[in-house]
Amino acid sequence: MAERSKEPGSFDLKQFSFPTEQIPRLSINDPEASSRISRALPVVLTDTNLVTSALHWDLDYLSKNIGDGEFVVHISKNKNFQYFDDKKMTNVKEFRKPSEKQDMKFSEFVEKLHQAKPGEDRLYLQQILHDTVGKKVIQDFLGFNWRWVTMQQKDNNFGEMTSNLLLVGMEGNVTPGHYDEQENFFAQVRGYKRFILFPPTQFACMYPYPIYHPCDRQSQVDFENPDFTKFPKFKEASGLETVVGPGDVLYIPMYWWHHVQSLPSHGYTISVTFWYKAGQSEKIEYPLKPKQKVAMMRNIEKMIHQALNDSSEMPEFMSNMTLGRYT
Amino acid sequence: MAERSKEPGSFDLKQFSFPTEQIPRLSINDPEASSRISRALPVVLTDTNLVTSALHWDLDYLSKNIGDGEFVVHISKNKNFQYFDDKKMTNVKEFRKPSEKQDMKFSEFVEKLHQAKPGEDRLYLQQILHDTVGKKVIQDFLGFNWRWVTMQQKDNNFGEMTSNLLLVGMEGNVTPGHYDEQENFFAQVRGYKRFILFPPTQFACMYPYPIYHPCDRQSQVDFENPDFTKFPKFKEASGLETVVGPGDVLYIPMYWWHHVQSLPSHGYTISVTFWYKAGQSEKIEYPLKPKQKVAMMRNIEKMIHQALNDSSEMPEFMSNMTLGRYT
Ligand SMILES: [Zn+2]
Ligand SMILES: [Zn+2]
Repeated sequence: MAERSKEPGSFDLKQFSFPTEQIPRLSINDPEASSRISRALPVVLTDTNLVTSALHWDLDYLSKNIGDGEFVVHISKNKNFQYFDDKKMTNVKEFRKPSEKQDMKFSEFVEKLHQAKPGEDRLYLQQILHDTVGKKVIQDFLGFNWRWVTMQQKDNNFGEMTSNLLLVGMEGNVTPGHYDEQENFFAQVRGYKRFILFPPTQFACMYPYPIYHPCDRQSQVDFENPDFTKFPKFKEASGLETVVGPGDVLYIPMYWWHHVQSLPSHGYTISVTFWYKAGQSEKIEYPLKPKQKVAMMRNIEKMIHQALNDSSEMPEFMSNMTLGRYT
Repeated sequence: MAERSKEPGSFDLKQFSFPTEQIPRLSINDPEASSRISRALPVVLTDTNLVTSALHWDLDYLSKNIGDGEFVVHISKNKNFQYFDDKKMTNVKEFRKPSEKQDMKFSEFVEKLHQAKPGEDRLYLQQILHDTVGKKVIQDFLGFNWRWVTMQQKDNNFGEMTSNLLLVGMEGNVTPGHYDEQENFFAQVRGYKRFILFPPTQFACMYPYPIYHPCDRQSQVDFENPDFTKFPKFKEASGLETVVGPGDVLYIPMYWWHHVQSLPSHGYTISVTFWYKAGQSEKIEYPLKPKQKVAMMRNIEKMIHQALNDSSEMPEFMSNMTLGRYT
């Protein structure tokens, strides 16, 4: 079991406007751990050894051994790194990129990190791992606990693994609330990240951007400073939270909302994600589950967007279809 | 050209809360008449001779000659005869029939009409014409101006004719606001009917019931006494109106909203509808036309209803998909 220098309760954490409960921290040998994963409930696993072979990673080691491929680095004027889809930018004329992307070698990234000053641009490296990495990192990668994670994939009927994303972030960096369309074992390698999660049942509280918007899948609500006038149902939100440290693995079920912050004043963070496609859909049983409804909404919105052939017609169409009729 | 004992302006008509313009009354020889039909705009045609062969119809004549088949008679405690679909009644537990249906011979209907007293049950016969009618009525029917109406069907690329509905209503009877999914040449045979029409562009002002509701295609708004708190956009409604008398034919384009009243104190009314399916859809051009969007909404609502498999889940699903996101 990996050493954990701090316990979750020992951090001085910012309070949010909504209540949260702690996500259970369990051993993989605890039947409750398997049970939670099979029921698509988040859980922090403390002894997967999933990335034990990488726990010695630091900026210096990676600089020397990760190879001289290009890495995607996001650059933000503030602490938020909200994801946006370049391909959807033309759908929303008034859209302004909340951050920039730049390709650079890992060593350049480290150099910029060292030069970074408070109040200036922040950096966040987010790069899918592929085979251009150097020998030593390949060895570390091969040493991941593939046996355990592949067993999880099978036992829980996940689809194929799509990618491992390497995340290297500055302390304080925030990935604002969003959901992914994949199952995720989120492995923390270095530093501490605080997660806030909301279940798919709270979709109505989260107000995701329209499907055609570059920020599709992202909540329009600023969790740290919610606008309750525009988003009144966010008052009803009730979350789960945890802090993961080196060696911890957080299971983030598909369609679960998550907001992630590298803890302020605790140094940079390194994480690796293990993403899996959804498994074959079960026989349809009624009533539909919340996550099935989310998937359905996405398909409906996509279909309408395609049929209208003009993003700017979507809001009127959607409100005409529902206001005073289904509301 | 059929005689018309009164001009449209000569009736003492109730005022509505919304503005209306008169629907043009034109000769079939006026190029503007054809132009309006081809542009799917309502028009009253004064000289189609479509039902000239039936202008002698009255209760007595029909009693003697329409045969002894069964006729559907709607019975209402008030002046409104709101259509509802029996097959959708199980979708809405709290639904209470706004009127009753009863099958009876035409002669029974006439007897009941004669016995009817103000403040008691009202009657409205609405029966699709078929071949059980007597010889003389068949002759009248064959004498309809099929040449003209079939030419219209071809020129305007309508689909097949589906049915002729015979309507015999008491004075004052109202068919509340709704749209049909067919093109309609509405031929007035006897008495006077006032029509209020709204174009499909005003869908948002009309607040139709959900698709699964027995009153699908009907406006939730009482045009004579609108609830602006529930239906604020009805304030923006702006209609067309006319009064049709014997020999007049009103073209009601598909998806146009219409509210119809047999004028109070002007005796019973007899009308015959000529309904046509939509023609083959043209090549899709963007932006979509309002009526194409109405058709699209119907398909989307049907699909969602089928997927959820439970009407009572529709409102929450529809508002979750739109509120604060597209509104
Ligand atoms: Zn994510
Ligand atoms: Zn109608």
